[in-house]
Amino acid sequence: MTSKDYYFDSYAHFGIHEEMLKDEVRTVSYRDSIIKNKHLFKDKIVLDVGCGTGILSMFAAKAGAKHVIGVDMSNIIDKAKLIVAENGLSDKVTLLKGKMEEIVLPYDHVDIIISEWMGYFLLYESMLDTVLVARDKYLSPGGMIFPDTATMVISTIEDGDYREEKLGFWDNVYGFSMSCIKEAALKEPLVDTVESRFVNSTPMVFKTIDILTVKKEDLTFQVPFEIEVSRDDYVHAFISWFDIEFRACHKPVRFSTGPFAKYTHWKQTVFYTPDSMTVCKGDKISGEITCAPNKENPRDLDIIISYELDGKEAKAKDSLEYRMC
Amino acid sequence: MTSKDYYFDSYAHFGIHEEMLKDEVRTVSYRDSIIKNKHLFKDKIVLDVGCGTGILSMFAAKAGAKHVIGVDMSNIIDKAKLIVAENGLSDKVTLLKGKMEEIVLPYDHVDIIISEWMGYFLLYESMLDTVLVARDKYLSPGGMIFPDTATMVISTIEDGDYREEKLGFWDNVYGFSMSCIKEAALKEPLVDTVESRFVNSTPMVFKTIDILTVKKEDLTFQVPFEIEVSRDDYVHAFISWFDIEFRACHKPVRFSTGPFAKYTHWKQTVFYTPDSMTVCKGDKISGEITCAPNKENPRDLDIIISYELDGKEAKAKDSLEYRMC
Repeated sequence: MTSKDYYFDSYAHFGIHEEMLKDEVRTVSYRDSIIKNKHLFKDKIVLDVGCGTGILSMFAAKAGAKHVIGVDMSNIIDKAKLIVAENGLSDKVTLLKGKMEEIVLPYDHVDIIISEWMGYFLLYESMLDTVLVARDKYLSPGGMIFPDTATMVISTIEDGDYREEKLGFWDNVYGFSMSCIKEAALKEPLVDTVESRFVNSTPMVFKTIDILTVKKEDLTFQVPFEIEVSRDDYVHAFISWFDIEFRACHKPVRFSTGPFAKYTHWKQTVFYTPDSMTVCKGDKISGEITCAPNKENPRDLDIIISYELDGKEAKAKDSLEYRMC
Repeated sequence: MTSKDYYFDSYAHFGIHEEMLKDEVRTVSYRDSIIKNKHLFKDKIVLDVGCGTGILSMFAAKAGAKHVIGVDMSNIIDKAKLIVAENGLSDKVTLLKGKMEEIVLPYDHVDIIISEWMGYFLLYESMLDTVLVARDKYLSPGGMIFPDTATMVISTIEDGDYREEKLGFWDNVYGFSMSCIKEAALKEPLVDTVESRFVNSTPMVFKTIDILTVKKEDLTFQVPFEIEVSRDDYVHAFISWFDIEFRACHKPVRFSTGPFAKYTHWKQTVFYTPDSMTVCKGDKISGEITCAPNKENPRDLDIIISYELDGKEAKAKDSLEYRMC
């Protein structure tokens, strides 16, 4: 009986910031997009949405911004204020505690919004809504957002052993069957690292988000997908990940959270199918992905994957409802 | 920006139960103490405090208990009811949702209390208080508690590399200093796995808890300790762990959560000292450990380690205040 998983204000705890800062793919991409693009930041007013420890705000200040405003509603911002002072940047960086929707900025407009808003499966517990509020309220015409593009990708994996460890476990728990938990485990996408060798179909982008123009309602969507199986194999799960791009940079900065790229703390998201599919090279798996905030608890994400295998071995058709919570 | 660390009712989530059930040291010890002691459980009324998925209640039913009452305030108990039914034990196991302090049991007295109440550092977010309430209200004279003994142990470690990774990191975070977070990180005990080869002093039991007789006020304590350094080395941290015993069993069942035993999900608790100590074989480190619930937030645990090194190389004396939160 034990849990470190309970915090009213989970971002007040430094452990989560340690994990994010030590995620070098994440932090170095942001640093490069800012520090290597001083021509974009010089003398600009910059808004950092969800500033956390203030690291992005300080990057922007170092890149020559005229003034950086960091906003965060978590208590971590009290530490961020000390950090900004310690690094002699208090004249360049102003940190404001509160909700983006309620806070009053010292400027009517900002030139650049920077934010690290991405959650698991890109959208789970993401802060994108808040970034859009900030954009619509404060971003100057022609202003920039860092990053400006996110793409969501789907593929399939062979994952028999791990599936057995995660789901089969509930069939025999020290001699008892716990099928209701197996059912719950199947419906909950698993955030975990997938080895690239298990991927057995061509990854397909199913959603592209242009942060400069996307509307909140676009984040509830139903989109088709079609992926092609790349070898004779079994499919135990769909997997999804996202890629991030800073296109405004002189040389675009990109990073991927996929299984073919370096580890990030976002890992990948695995959606186990109730049964495994026997697939052959060239088979097509087509279907639709629906993604929407849960109506009762908008923090949760309802994801439906309906799919059809048009293969040599078998036809399979199913529709799976998952919930990230 | 992401977190799975936020749940109002963290025990409603099956992931934490998966971790606990898959901790074989934990679960097999409980199973052995119950299933291998049918003579103790036969025809007995058993109370399972904080029953979770109901696994211990079902062990007790299988061991021949007349009736098992499981109590839990988390929503996981709704799943536990399905599990008990699925395993055909509904006539033997009754599960009640609510707080031990408020709930009305169908019996005035029970013969045996079983509970897996232990938290990190034994007492952090532990349910021992609730077990004591149940004991004082319901346990028959001569009744048993599983487990019945817990001991807390202290030792020291050499841990220069990891200390640098965990604390030194904040000195230079992509070119910025974050000393306020370093300070916070130093004051927060680290729950992590310690390799036994890093232990460089003789472990010493500083607190023994007899669950049958301990009082709530005994869980706030100040006790002396003295440990002897076992090799010429450096000390970077104190570590603590606990051992659990089921002495009522025919053949006592025991398990340790220490670095010399098999991994458990409790790992060990590390208390970094502000500076490293240069120590020689035979040196004595003596001091006092104070442990108390935080006054403002009783969920948190305040731990003070004051110590004195009486060694050949140097005298060191310090007092460190930690907070588990």
